[in-house]
Amino acid sequence: MDRPENQQRAFSAWRERLGPDGAIDDPAVLARYARSTHPNATRPWCVLLPASTAEVQAIVATAAKEGAGLYPIARGRNWGYGDACAPECGAAILDLSRMDAILEINAELGYAVIEPGVTQQQLYEAVRENAPDFWVDCTGAGKEASIAGNILERGFGHTPYGDHVRTSCGMEVVLADGRLLRTGFLHYPNAKAAWVYPYGTGPMLDGLFSQSNLGVVTRLGVWLYPAPEAFRFFFLRVQDPAALPALIEALRPLRMKGLLNSAVHIGNDLRLLSSLAPYPWEEAKGETPLSETLRARLRREAGIGAWNMSGSLTGTNAQVRAAYRALRRATKPFGKLRFATDARLAWARRIAQFGRRFGLARRLQAQLDTLAPNYGLLKGVPTDEPLRGARWRVRAMDGNDTAQDPRDAGAGLIWMSPVMPLRGEDIQAALDCAAPHFKTHGFDLLATYTLINERAVIAIFNIAFDNNIPEESEAALACYQATLAALKEAGYPPYRTNALGMDAIRDPGDTFWEVTQLLKRALDPKEVLARGRYIPPLDDAPLSG
Amino acid sequence: MDRPENQQRAFSAWRERLGPDGAIDDPAVLARYARSTHPNATRPWCVLLPASTAEVQAIVATAAKEGAGLYPIARGRNWGYGDACAPECGAAILDLSRMDAILEINAELGYAVIEPGVTQQQLYEAVRENAPDFWVDCTGAGKEASIAGNILERGFGHTPYGDHVRTSCGMEVVLADGRLLRTGFLHYPNAKAAWVYPYGTGPMLDGLFSQSNLGVVTRLGVWLYPAPEAFRFFFLRVQDPAALPALIEALRPLRMKGLLNSAVHIGNDLRLLSSLAPYPWEEAKGETPLSETLRARLRREAGIGAWNMSGSLTGTNAQVRAAYRALRRATKPFGKLRFATDARLAWARRIAQFGRRFGLARRLQAQLDTLAPNYGLLKGVPTDEPLRGARWRVRAMDGNDTAQDPRDAGAGLIWMSPVMPLRGEDIQAALDCAAPHFKTHGFDLLATYTLINERAVIAIFNIAFDNNIPEESEAALACYQATLAALKEAGYPPYRTNALGMDAIRDPGDTFWEVTQLLKRALDPKEVLARGRYIPPLDDAPLSG
Repeated sequence: MDRPENQQRAFSAWRERLGPDGAIDDPAVLARYARSTHPNATRPWCVLLPASTAEVQAIVATAAKEGAGLYPIARGRNWGYGDACAPECGAAILDLSRMDAILEINAELGYAVIEPGVTQQQLYEAVRENAPDFWVDCTGAGKEASIAGNILERGFGHTPYGDHVRTSCGMEVVLADGRLLRTGFLHYPNAKAAWVYPYGTGPMLDGLFSQSNLGVVTRLGVWLYPAPEAFRFFFLRVQDPAALPALIEALRPLRMKGLLNSAVHIGNDLRLLSSLAPYPWEEAKGETPLSETLRARLRREAGIGAWNMSGSLTGTNAQVRAAYRALRRATKPFGKLRFATDARLAWARRIAQFGRRFGLARRLQAQLDTLAPNYGLLKGVPTDEPLRGARWRVRAMDGNDTAQDPRDAGAGLIWMSPVMPLRGEDIQAALDCAAPHFKTHGFDLLATYTLINERAVIAIFNIAFDNNIPEESEAALACYQATLAALKEAGYPPYRTNALGMDAIRDPGDTFWEVTQLLKRALDPKEVLARGRYIPPLDDAPLSG
Repeated sequence: MDRPENQQRAFSAWRERLGPDGAIDDPAVLARYARSTHPNATRPWCVLLPASTAEVQAIVATAAKEGAGLYPIARGRNWGYGDACAPECGAAILDLSRMDAILEINAELGYAVIEPGVTQQQLYEAVRENAPDFWVDCTGAGKEASIAGNILERGFGHTPYGDHVRTSCGMEVVLADGRLLRTGFLHYPNAKAAWVYPYGTGPMLDGLFSQSNLGVVTRLGVWLYPAPEAFRFFFLRVQDPAALPALIEALRPLRMKGLLNSAVHIGNDLRLLSSLAPYPWEEAKGETPLSETLRARLRREAGIGAWNMSGSLTGTNAQVRAAYRALRRATKPFGKLRFATDARLAWARRIAQFGRRFGLARRLQAQLDTLAPNYGLLKGVPTDEPLRGARWRVRAMDGNDTAQDPRDAGAGLIWMSPVMPLRGEDIQAALDCAAPHFKTHGFDLLATYTLINERAVIAIFNIAFDNNIPEESEAALACYQATLAALKEAGYPPYRTNALGMDAIRDPGDTFWEVTQLLKRALDPKEVLARGRYIPPLDDAPLSG
């Protein structure tokens, strides 16, 4: 292998420190890291697997000395946003998955202290065992996804603790010069409130390490949601495709006043259909996107709405009853609000099994298939189900796909995630902005909306495509860039992006990005860490100040 | 006046730009800025009063050019933390009080966009008029205090929106090089969610401008609390001085589960007594602190408890009823939970007035005096009442003090504010840590506790003294330093500090503070802004990295 000398020296030092299992350049392993649901997946030149903060510090020190850049990942499950891939080929991946210690679970104050390799499933199980009165707020990223990695990308969950920026507290960060920074009160030896009061004294630095490349977070405090006395899962199928803005208007007062205290979720028909069955290539005669007629027929057959709202109400029994009444009243014009409990779901499953023997219960089964994973998520149970939809458009699928990893099937998936005020006109404007681009490029606009806080909604517009077919991957890329640019222009920039979208969100001459460059220069002047991730590369623009 | 040449040049430029009303060196005015409830108040060499962001930019540019440091204040009502004073004499005060525009009140999405000079009273009135379905979450800092100034110091209020870090969104900041930084989505022209989604894309920079000196915030988004259907003010007088830890333990599950959704407040007897009447110098025979016997007698006479809890329950009628029942059950061992509504308070006032004619209702009147201001605050009505206690120990008071400004009476007031986990043992440990120092130095430990979030408590330990008597001011300073050091050592550093406490919170060699210095060097290398405020001065410690 023709590796530059500095990389050779760095790799020797890393291998000496970490051993052959911790510093890897085996091509088979590198190929595994190069899988992505994105087009243009990138391949690293090596992978480093530290087992401790001290090892991370040593790796970073060597990288700085030898001028070998690092690209940190937690567990590489950044679904829809580029997986484990660095923006460019030839990166050294700093994979933190071995650092998977749960350092503390505090069942009194309701928090956990975790390393970045801790998975959703792992923390879920540990909390169930050690703090059974609490739930972990999970995202839809699957059982094996990193909790910390997702939080640092500002992903969101579905319980009242769904806004993870508000519910994480305290960080330990390895800086590019190898020093260890502790945020909040954590840098005071012995500070008792380090994991329960997020702000400390003096400037708050935590925000610098979220969606950035200014440090490697090696420890994080996560608040646990106290299991409520009462839990009610609700869902509503809205048949009218034009009803979304009015539904949003009806929900705003409830979310604003806290009657809806979880991050309500609304998926369109396409998003639900994608997780039920493969794209109907035959019926569609090979055409994409789905015709309105076929789309409506599939919707009817699956018993789903044009818009499908779900969420949970939690609190005391009295609170949940009161909230349910208010929600039912507010959503009455849109359809019948239904709810599920553990007992109801078990009953429906028995009916469906019974019905299946007579071929009667296809619709009920489809409804259960779309409900159950969300139901679990809202109780803090991680699930791999939401990932299923990723394989929708892959032509080679036989419909009985059991592969856990959509990348193994060549599933293509690019997410973009505009943010809108919680207001009907904005929801409609963003949708109208995106829809023509999807249609032009031959894609179905799979859409979900999450009421992330009392005033704002995050949409996920999902380009699902067959990444085995180069033309389709090309079209997906073009669709992505065109839609993202149009959304930003219309006033709906994304809450998060992937390597493909970095340039689109950074306007030249924008003081905001120039300031982030000043910070990068202050904390990582050699650009040891994840060059170009969110913060523009330092030589791209002249620095002032 | 023998002013250095650079200051002369700077002042000429400022006066040319701002006029004689905007650039002031009149000694009478400077003397007004030098008033403080702290000992060692500092006197500026000039005061600058910009009326716009452009003027702030011009002032900062001149300051950078001439090497004349600026000390920004909002309205200078930083009670207990040093008022309008810079840490050292000879500062140029950048007073933002003229920038008092309310730029937007959005009655649909529930937010306001304000300049730093906007007062609590001003926003309260504007919201009552333009968005009557919302409340402003106010702090106890008084009607004339700046909303933005308090938020940037991370002060807290009393409704469910009391944690202002969670409920402010979007900043415009003038940097030391004169550039304008916009945070969150605000830097994207036309971004619709700029005031409703706080995090934007890329690193979150807002935290850098809170408790720091890295920029001058000239615009801030503040979320308004949706007026609840039901509001119930509750209070509880606990007679047993030893009951605090058990009470805290009883409250934790309620706060954790959101049944208590506002920042519950617990004051000790001394804090309440201080706002009812002057220190009983005669009865105490000139001794301080109060003897236990006298203290107990005053408590009985005023009808207050050793601990006095108050707060509000808000939500729907059903929610409030359910929460009240749970709270009453949990607090039953400590005393009888009482509640007040508008109607009840009006009734009690009439009784008290009636009783006064017959000299019967002294206790009832005292109870009303301690209740009413808190009651209003919990509904978002700003009040100057909490400031009254400041004058408690001033010997020259005649008991009929009507001065709005405690500084006019020579009232001494130093606050320290340790943070504890919401756990009885920690509350007791911090109190045990502080009490001996107060006693040794001759001060009564006026204490309040606020359940700032679901897991943490902020205490305000209040040294009230007579700032007209040099020995007492000296003793107050000594008490402050000894208590602060002991609390930090015990694991309870403060959430906020004043100029007196800056050194105590900054341990030499602490990476956290070294990193803040790197940031200061990146954003304000000449230390134009508030040198030494939180972030250590740059020449105090060698910078690495």
